[in-house]
Amino acid sequence: MRVRDYGIKIGVLKTGKLNAITDVTGVKVGHETLIEGENIRTGVTTIIPHTGNVFQAKVPAAIYIGNGFGKLTGYSQVEELGNIETPIVLTNTLSAPTASNALISYTLALPGNEDVRSVNPVVGETNDGFLNDIRGRHVKEEHVLSAISNAREGKVEEGNVGAGTGTVCFGYKGGIGTSSRVLPSSLGGYTVGVLVQTNFGGVLEVNGVPVAKELGKYPYQDKILNDVDGSCMIVVITDAPLDARNLKRLAKRAIMGLAKTGGIASNGSGDYVIALSTARENLVPYSGESMFYESKVLKNDDISPLFLATIEATEEAILNSLFTAETLEGRDGNNVDSLPVKEVMKVMKKYNKINK
Amino acid sequence: MRVRDYGIKIGVLKTGKLNAITDVTGVKVGHETLIEGENIRTGVTTIIPHTGNVFQAKVPAAIYIGNGFGKLTGYSQVEELGNIETPIVLTNTLSAPTASNALISYTLALPGNEDVRSVNPVVGETNDGFLNDIRGRHVKEEHVLSAISNAREGKVEEGNVGAGTGTVCFGYKGGIGTSSRVLPSSLGGYTVGVLVQTNFGGVLEVNGVPVAKELGKYPYQDKILNDVDGSCMIVVITDAPLDARNLKRLAKRAIMGLAKTGGIASNGSGDYVIALSTARENLVPYSGESMFYESKVLKNDDISPLFLATIEATEEAILNSLFTAETLEGRDGNNVDSLPVKEVMKVMKKYNKINK
Amino acid sequence: MRVRDYGIKIGVLKTGKLNAITDVTGVKVGHETLIEGENIRTGVTTIIPHTGNVFQAKVPAAIYIGNGFGKLTGYSQVEELGNIETPIVLTNTLSAPTASNALISYTLALPGNEDVRSVNPVVGETNDGFLNDIRGRHVKEEHVLSAISNAREGKVEEGNVGAGTGTVCFGYKGGIGTSSRVLPSSLGGYTVGVLVQTNFGGVLEVNGVPVAKELGKYPYQDKILNDVDGSCMIVVITDAPLDARNLKRLAKRAIMGLAKTGGIASNGSGDYVIALSTARENLVPYSGESMFYESKVLKNDDISPLFLATIEATEEAILNSLFTAETLEGRDGNNVDSLPVKEVMKVMKKYNKINK
Amino acid sequence: MRVRDYGIKIGVLKTGKLNAITDVTGVKVGHETLIEGENIRTGVTTIIPHTGNVFQAKVPAAIYIGNGFGKLTGYSQVEELGNIETPIVLTNTLSAPTASNALISYTLALPGNEDVRSVNPVVGETNDGFLNDIRGRHVKEEHVLSAISNAREGKVEEGNVGAGTGTVCFGYKGGIGTSSRVLPSSLGGYTVGVLVQTNFGGVLEVNGVPVAKELGKYPYQDKILNDVDGSCMIVVITDAPLDARNLKRLAKRAIMGLAKTGGIASNGSGDYVIALSTARENLVPYSGESMFYESKVLKNDDISPLFLATIEATEEAILNSLFTAETLEGRDGNNVDSLPVKEVMKVMKKYNKINK
Repeated sequence: MRVRDYGIKIGVLKTGKLNAITDVTGVKVGHETLIEGENIRTGVTTIIPHTGNVFQAKVPAAIYIGNGFGKLTGYSQVEELGNIETPIVLTNTLSAPTASNALISYTLALPGNEDVRSVNPVVGETNDGFLNDIRGRHVKEEHVLSAISNAREGKVEEGNVGAGTGTVCFGYKGGIGTSSRVLPSSLGGYTVGVLVQTNFGGVLEVNGVPVAKELGKYPYQDKILNDVDGSCMIVVITDAPLDARNLKRLAKRAIMGLAKTGGIASNGSGDYVIALSTARENLVPYSGESMFYESKVLKNDDISPLFLATIEATEEAILNSLFTAETLEGRDGNNVDSLPVKEVMKVMKKYNKINK
Repeated sequence: MRVRDYGIKIGVLKTGKLNAITDVTGVKVGHETLIEGENIRTGVTTIIPHTGNVFQAKVPAAIYIGNGFGKLTGYSQVEELGNIETPIVLTNTLSAPTASNALISYTLALPGNEDVRSVNPVVGETNDGFLNDIRGRHVKEEHVLSAISNAREGKVEEGNVGAGTGTVCFGYKGGIGTSSRVLPSSLGGYTVGVLVQTNFGGVLEVNGVPVAKELGKYPYQDKILNDVDGSCMIVVITDAPLDARNLKRLAKRAIMGLAKTGGIASNGSGDYVIALSTARENLVPYSGESMFYESKVLKNDDISPLFLATIEATEEAILNSLFTAETLEGRDGNNVDSLPVKEVMKVMKKYNKINK
Repeated sequence: MRVRDYGIKIGVLKTGKLNAITDVTGVKVGHETLIEGENIRTGVTTIIPHTGNVFQAKVPAAIYIGNGFGKLTGYSQVEELGNIETPIVLTNTLSAPTASNALISYTLALPGNEDVRSVNPVVGETNDGFLNDIRGRHVKEEHVLSAISNAREGKVEEGNVGAGTGTVCFGYKGGIGTSSRVLPSSLGGYTVGVLVQTNFGGVLEVNGVPVAKELGKYPYQDKILNDVDGSCMIVVITDAPLDARNLKRLAKRAIMGLAKTGGIASNGSGDYVIALSTARENLVPYSGESMFYESKVLKNDDISPLFLATIEATEEAILNSLFTAETLEGRDGNNVDSLPVKEVMKVMKKYNKINK
Repeated sequence: MRVRDYGIKIGVLKTGKLNAITDVTGVKVGHETLIEGENIRTGVTTIIPHTGNVFQAKVPAAIYIGNGFGKLTGYSQVEELGNIETPIVLTNTLSAPTASNALISYTLALPGNEDVRSVNPVVGETNDGFLNDIRGRHVKEEHVLSAISNAREGKVEEGNVGAGTGTVCFGYKGGIGTSSRVLPSSLGGYTVGVLVQTNFGGVLEVNGVPVAKELGKYPYQDKILNDVDGSCMIVVITDAPLDARNLKRLAKRAIMGLAKTGGIASNGSGDYVIALSTARENLVPYSGESMFYESKVLKNDDISPLFLATIEATEEAILNSLFTAETLEGRDGNNVDSLPVKEVMKVMKKYNKINK
């Protein structure tokens, strides 16, 4: 069950139909989960922004580095040119290069790309090495390609799935989560969808309720520090027409949503936000006759509601990852318990934060 | 009364003795408040990092731009050289140049600076134009110099004072606020102090309680957008030994504290964080024989507790500004009500968030 | 006489008609020169991008910080919003705040701006303190306003004029310089104009000829370091339709032109590039009904020729400042000789670099 | 023969003994060259900053993105933490992920790294797709590991070797080049070494002589644009004690050296500079008891001579790559001629630029 199913309502804006990143038309999500033997607990999640050839119809994009202790691949070209040209792949830290290789294979093989000799794969990662034999690098190209071909519109699986299979968040089992917001039509009616891979620490709050404090599960009570580290990958997609500059600003707001869950972007955290605008009319053709690129984007003055939407959807996506993830045992007998939802709900009740 | 006086306890870390930026040894704060006639509601706040000649003993520093719709002065030299060489001045948007001029006057006149021909004044601002006749630029150099000479250690005045005289926050009267945190000695025992000038919007939460939602006072309920704009200036000072790179990271975390109050860093907001480390041994001499700069700083691995401290102190400083500010009438009869604390406390009670 | 008048031809592209920043239609330049008594050697230069109200019709813009030891004002808002809303003013370091104040006065007073309460003045500066009593801050608001009202299209005065009155470059008298390039019509036929305020050091080369080496005038021959410091302000304006992202890239190339003169962007140098695109169709209205901003810009793939144009025009503008500046005595009897053009031409001849 | 062997002397500072990046004590360079059949023309070059375990004794570092149209891997962690933890590998664009995988394999396997679960591989690349069947991704992990184990101190092979095997520069055969500078002992006596992988375009100048113009080989004479694209990877290593902030500044100057060869950092160019300081006393231990990091670095005021050294060594390294590279035929019969040194020397003579 997702956080909203428990009567916990984040924010003031409405969700999309599925309350998922796939509420943005054309967006597909795919997972490949690797749970094998006692030590392999990892996987791959892909986000495909539109149904065409992404290399031929590039997508306006920006990446914001919340905290750069991570191995996200593809940053500088997105920053320089303002667009992405591959699907986004999330996986574990040491498998990022394999995922890049798979994205190159995928792109080179697409019809129409026969002469392509340069590809900028965008790969995000978090470190699932506590539960997963990450040094074994068990993710192979075929798993990534499978997560791409698996990808579909509609409902998104959450929790211990794909790139979220082996992650840990606030000391509990983390994973994949998603959420969305839709603006009132008076503000443009746009959708903002968020998908997260949660693997970070801090002092957990659920919709403003101090869950970690109540459950006595937070860092710095004594000298124990290590469980704040980890990372969070956040993908934000909107159908609102935005250029790279304003997408960067949108991306920055996602970290504000993370903050509201109690995350602190600790030293060892690789917290990255990839933001895309899929507005059809602004896609960037790989080639063409014209010297000009014509676009129609929201004015600076009209983007603040999208900031709020991003903050709310990120907060809820993170909570969804926690509420849907399940207890998992992995590498060397390491075990991570799921969020104790029953106890959490008692705390939520104490603070009168359950909607009927 | 400050937020904590109402039994509202933010976070898990301890505050300093005064719960103020002045808990960092040597830090002084000064205010000059201009309330004149019906239209002048503005002022100046200064933060002086140590008791020496700041130009001769520069302070390791970084500035993080949360949202750059603002006129903060001095950014690029701090970024390039990693230190500041003047006190910090906060004032209103259109008076920033006057404040810079005053800082230059102040610096040129200090004993020992007779041959100085270059000064990098650091001035922050927010726009108090709703209550204040900002176009009149009523702040004069003398007011700034007076705020510098007024500055002292100890208790810091909050609310409608100095640069916070005419500001508006979440639709209520904003102002100056401050707070601090002290790490357990096992984590180094360092102090982090924060001072804010609050003039921004969003969907107010008080310690996680949805106050704006309960009071029906938030944007995007209909098409009304304008009251989310504004700005927030945040000054973070610590005695922990940090270099400019890690101070930049600390500064980024302050925006996470702002996020927890419900701020959204709207398009029109100028949200800046200036972070300083006053550790004596790392001050940067203006001149000297040696080619070398020797420093002793915290390792990357040991700074995460300071991140949490910064987040908590920023959240509480913002709330302090709201709880201490008072209803004010200003320019053209414009009026801004203070936070209705009684009603807020009813909401806090409903959500069981009052500590005894 | 300008460098090209001596038969020295920089680069491979054609210049505009005037070989000046004013070759870009609508651009105006104004100077106010202050030479008074024995110690005042300073001034103001303004660049106005179009003939309308710049606040009401903002200009797509970017600022690149080559080396940030300087006090350029207005950076963060240009970076965040991608446009400028005032003319550009250049002056001396300690007069930058006064220039900002003047730009605010100018903007508030423009018809149509009666309700404006926020202005982002863009001011660049270099330090003329060797020849000028910079501590005296002799530039007043009226001088800046005068440089704005003086501004006109057509030929641009160079050398010891305006903000270049008291500057020093490669150990010789520096000043204001300008140049332009026009692309072949097959590449769009666009014009790129550059104006510089030169006050920096290094190992002077003139069109690739090692002039400093030949004249024995360069740093690091022994321990003497100080004359490499200083700064360079570079303004690049084009009528090519570019957005802020690509203007930033254009701005970065100007530093490559500076490099070709032998500049090294020393520690103490404040080297900034402000780049604007005046393409009519992309100006940004201050207000308006529509939520959308429509633009038509050059594709990423088609901007490289503008990079070359920027590099060449910057190199030539710097040389023009040196060839037109004249020996000047100033503060405390300090004297700076002009470039010894006769000797330089002998060197140019030795290296066979004089075109007939 | 290298450029200096032809009597062409770049700059005013002295070179190191080998005039190579290996003049910095402890630095090793390795190559693996793949020339197979008619279509494989590629390879790998590694730069190892010191003889220890780089993961256990990390090296202060910074990366500057001159133009980000490239796939350099490892940027954000270097930026965030200020150090590198692997050797640097250069290869072709589509083989960057394989090189990352090899660096991970190498690092995981080092004695002492048995518990390491996170590695930040730093890989640079340029696109050799004109001469090489880049789509075939013929570089395998074993080639990278071989280039690492091949690495040694002393003379560095240049031209068509390693990662420079298939590159093209200014329309001629490019490749690997290196150079160094040593400061006078009065300025600290430090060494700066540079190694480049050249694959970019522009209007070639050799020590200020307009070679491209004289040989009629440059872009924009007509509409032909494509040969300006490409990339340049630049590695700068110094034994001067610098922190990450000042290394970033050093890195920026390398692009100024590139500018002096006539490079324009075209739209399609991925121009990156990786700068390291190997000063023993400032290496960053992976683990240790102390919370503190003590360092002794050059003051800001004393780093400008290193800027000049970097500019000169970069310019010369690029020229060395051109003077040593040889004509090569590759993929689909594509052929790239070497720089026609005889003709170039005639031009050099015309401009009197040959030292005896």
